[in-house]
Amino acid sequence: MHNHKALTIKKLGIDTYRENIIYMRSDCNVCLSEGFTALTRVVVHFGNESIIATLNVVYNELLKHGEAGLSIVAAQRLGVSDGDSIMVSHLQPIASMGLVRSKMYGNELNEAELNQIIYDISTGQYSNIELAAFITATSGNHLSLNEIKGLTSAMVRSGKNLEWNNQLIFDKHCIGGLPGNRTTPIVISIVAAAGLTIPKTSSRAITSPAGTADTMEVMTNVELSIDQMKEVVSKENGCLVWGGSVSLSPADDVLISVEKALDIDSEGQMIASVLSKKKAAGATHVVIDIPVGSTAKVRTKENAYKLISYFEDVADVIGLHVKCVITNGSQPVGKGIGPALEAMDVLSVLRNENNAPEDLKQRALLLAGELLELSENVEKGKGISKAIKILENGSAYKKLISICEAQGRFTEPEFAAFSLDVLAVQSGIVNEIDCRKLAKIAKLSGAPKSHKAGILFHSHLGKQINNGDVLFTIYAEAQGELNYALNYYKTQNNIIRIK
Amino acid sequence: MHNHKALTIKKLGIDTYRENIIYMRSDCNVCLSEGFTALTRVVVHFGNESIIATLNVVYNELLKHGEAGLSIVAAQRLGVSDGDSIMVSHLQPIASMGLVRSKMYGNELNEAELNQIIYDISTGQYSNIELAAFITATSGNHLSLNEIKGLTSAMVRSGKNLEWNNQLIFDKHCIGGLPGNRTTPIVISIVAAAGLTIPKTSSRAITSPAGTADTMEVMTNVELSIDQMKEVVSKENGCLVWGGSVSLSPADDVLISVEKALDIDSEGQMIASVLSKKKAAGATHVVIDIPVGSTAKVRTKENAYKLISYFEDVADVIGLHVKCVITNGSQPVGKGIGPALEAMDVLSVLRNENNAPEDLKQRALLLAGELLELSENVEKGKGISKAIKILENGSAYKKLISICEAQGRFTEPEFAAFSLDVLAVQSGIVNEIDCRKLAKIAKLSGAPKSHKAGILFHSHLGKQINNGDVLFTIYAEAQGELNYALNYYKTQNNIIRIK
Repeated sequence: MHNHKALTIKKLGIDTYRENIIYMRSDCNVCLSEGFTALTRVVVHFGNESIIATLNVVYNELLKHGEAGLSIVAAQRLGVSDGDSIMVSHLQPIASMGLVRSKMYGNELNEAELNQIIYDISTGQYSNIELAAFITATSGNHLSLNEIKGLTSAMVRSGKNLEWNNQLIFDKHCIGGLPGNRTTPIVISIVAAAGLTIPKTSSRAITSPAGTADTMEVMTNVELSIDQMKEVVSKENGCLVWGGSVSLSPADDVLISVEKALDIDSEGQMIASVLSKKKAAGATHVVIDIPVGSTAKVRTKENAYKLISYFEDVADVIGLHVKCVITNGSQPVGKGIGPALEAMDVLSVLRNENNAPEDLKQRALLLAGELLELSENVEKGKGISKAIKILENGSAYKKLISICEAQGRFTEPEFAAFSLDVLAVQSGIVNEIDCRKLAKIAKLSGAPKSHKAGILFHSHLGKQINNGDVLFTIYAEAQGELNYALNYYKTQNNIIRIK
Repeated sequence: MHNHKALTIKKLGIDTYRENIIYMRSDCNVCLSEGFTALTRVVVHFGNESIIATLNVVYNELLKHGEAGLSIVAAQRLGVSDGDSIMVSHLQPIASMGLVRSKMYGNELNEAELNQIIYDISTGQYSNIELAAFITATSGNHLSLNEIKGLTSAMVRSGKNLEWNNQLIFDKHCIGGLPGNRTTPIVISIVAAAGLTIPKTSSRAITSPAGTADTMEVMTNVELSIDQMKEVVSKENGCLVWGGSVSLSPADDVLISVEKALDIDSEGQMIASVLSKKKAAGATHVVIDIPVGSTAKVRTKENAYKLISYFEDVADVIGLHVKCVITNGSQPVGKGIGPALEAMDVLSVLRNENNAPEDLKQRALLLAGELLELSENVEKGKGISKAIKILENGSAYKKLISICEAQGRFTEPEFAAFSLDVLAVQSGIVNEIDCRKLAKIAKLSGAPKSHKAGILFHSHLGKQINNGDVLFTIYAEAQGELNYALNYYKTQNNIIRIK
């Protein structure tokens, strides 16, 4: 920390999402004496705190002499307000980027090296460009099993680790890729009602129209502190919160925001992301749902078996017991695709309504059954029947409402203001569904950022469709997004193939 | 182009370097109706022009209702000023990013696919994150020979192609990695004086403290239009201009800015970058200087031979005749490292001064000799002696001055205001030099952005050094940068090893 000079913070109110930007005048004496120019990476100091930021240079009267601005996220992270005095200094070159470059050249990274990279990422030292390079260099099949193990351990180490009083802590995870597959709230409700401890932390969507945290946020608060989360679990055996708000794997949260921008979510990164979060959350026993289908994330059984063996090997290294379950990934699950629409499906199953989506119900029961059997309180083969009982007698529904209320509120999901029916232009049987393109329509309609946006799906495989029937309904919170989703649909063939 | 509404441009004057940013109010009706949030990628329309930009949302009174701001580069590219009326619409997903993702998974891209990617990059459709992903996915040894051929052809196609009246057009290139190796201005002066047509376009530094364009800019104007460049060449046989200003390979210029941020410059990208620029500049015969040394870009002779065979194969596909020359890359060339300091070395050689750096002179003569022999006007083996004659009788110096004057000015280089001698702390013989770390010191001192910054090097291999002798002098245009360079030096061992 040499050569920094004081500047006064002027609130500019610019939202750059997650990127720290500092705005300084082109004729600012700090810029001139330090040789800073646009895109220089600098350290901004306030009291004992500091953040790394990228410089944007201002050429007019937005800022007076001696003033500097910060993007909203940067001001929050540094904890400064209007009028506070900050100092700015050069950023020393980030040594771990040399390791990322080495990875680009095909060299295997060891655990200590992955630790260095993940530490620097979790402390906000990488720019978005550098994050994109790390993600790309470790994407596809570029991570060896040893590297995935090292990355997972590094990610566990990068954040907080929760501790629980119980010896057995359960968890479940779906690797995703299947629109509408929102079993988690149902599974947690069933097994928590059965007395298992299952403190569930979920992510927001990476490349899909909704993550469990997005869906739960429609019904309750998901941004809980660790203390609040522990209180909920001690009262209800389970919770349904957003993992990011409890800082279990801060590096993962940073990586996910760039993976989303690149629309990638590759195997090694996924395994490390999933298992590190489970371990950090204190889990001991985890059921993992792996949907397999031609347009799901895992396309063949062979790929699924390879993935399962990786999951088991890495879990072993970090001391987790995992049970992987292959499920059918050939079509959307339930009717809703998008946060609020999926919440409606969840409630419909838990309320044992007549028109509740049977496919979603059966999948949730299967996974809940596996968890109950892992607990060893339930005999092998008897898990599902116990789960059915807890669901059908209303205990699971009561448990969800109790969990939501313990988290601060229960809110009934609602439909979006704008909607549009997409109609069949021929008759026949639904023969094939492109889940990826369907998910894309839901995303273009605004999901997950717009909670009520998405798709209500009416044309599952094998259904008889008549010309003019509603195939699905698009929901959006703004007319522009509705048109945008529809325009994409019109350019595509065979999203729903009728024969 | 649907759903866009007019907004009025308010000049904010924010410099984001090369990234197009649009600033819109959080409660702007376009944001609300289109569902735009921070980091949404949008299309900004003005008359018949449009650019793609990333949204930053403003939460206070920087902008009034109905106003939007653009970063300086975005306003320039779109050609708008204060008060102009723009429209904003959704960006359709960029199809070629799917190909980049496919490359991440190890799939080979064909020429048509590489064309699509390079077209989208050259028209500014990729964000910095997406560019970083493409660069990383094609870095290291991830490009096959066929892909390098395809990438090279795509880059030739992405920009303008110069045409010349002469049948034979000469060019030279050094792949870099050796600080101070500024032979180009000397070589061009010699061969242009000999009557060969050599319209030289050079790049600015990618990861080094100076590119030839940076050095030439100290002495003359390098940002010439194609017409201006042609006029200079028709008068003087040669020119020394910046390639970026004549748009020969616009995709390459975009890629280089991100490669620089990542500090990488890998083989396949380098071959495509070099040969596409030569081809687009209309060259038919090219000499390529490949310095080999333990801390140079190419570290062994074996790597050099592989690189040469790639250069020859790719050149063949696009119809170029190349001659690669392996040179010694074990230490800096000349005394200066940094734009102005290298310009001083160049002038000293051309002026035949007594203390002119002999190593720089010999390298320039070798390369000029190879070019003269390629022309077939000079007998095999007689190239160097002809080059010596042209250099030593002053014709080459006169040619450089004429070229500079034809480009608009000749300016004598000057030393920077701040400097500091780094002294030896032991006596002995200089045994090994870490060129990479030396280059890093020059970069930390501000080169190439600060033209006068850099290093004057006094301790070449084999020199007898006494305790307290000046090993090198650091120059900087600001005290902060001088300290920054010095602080880095203090943390390093063995940049200059004395035995």
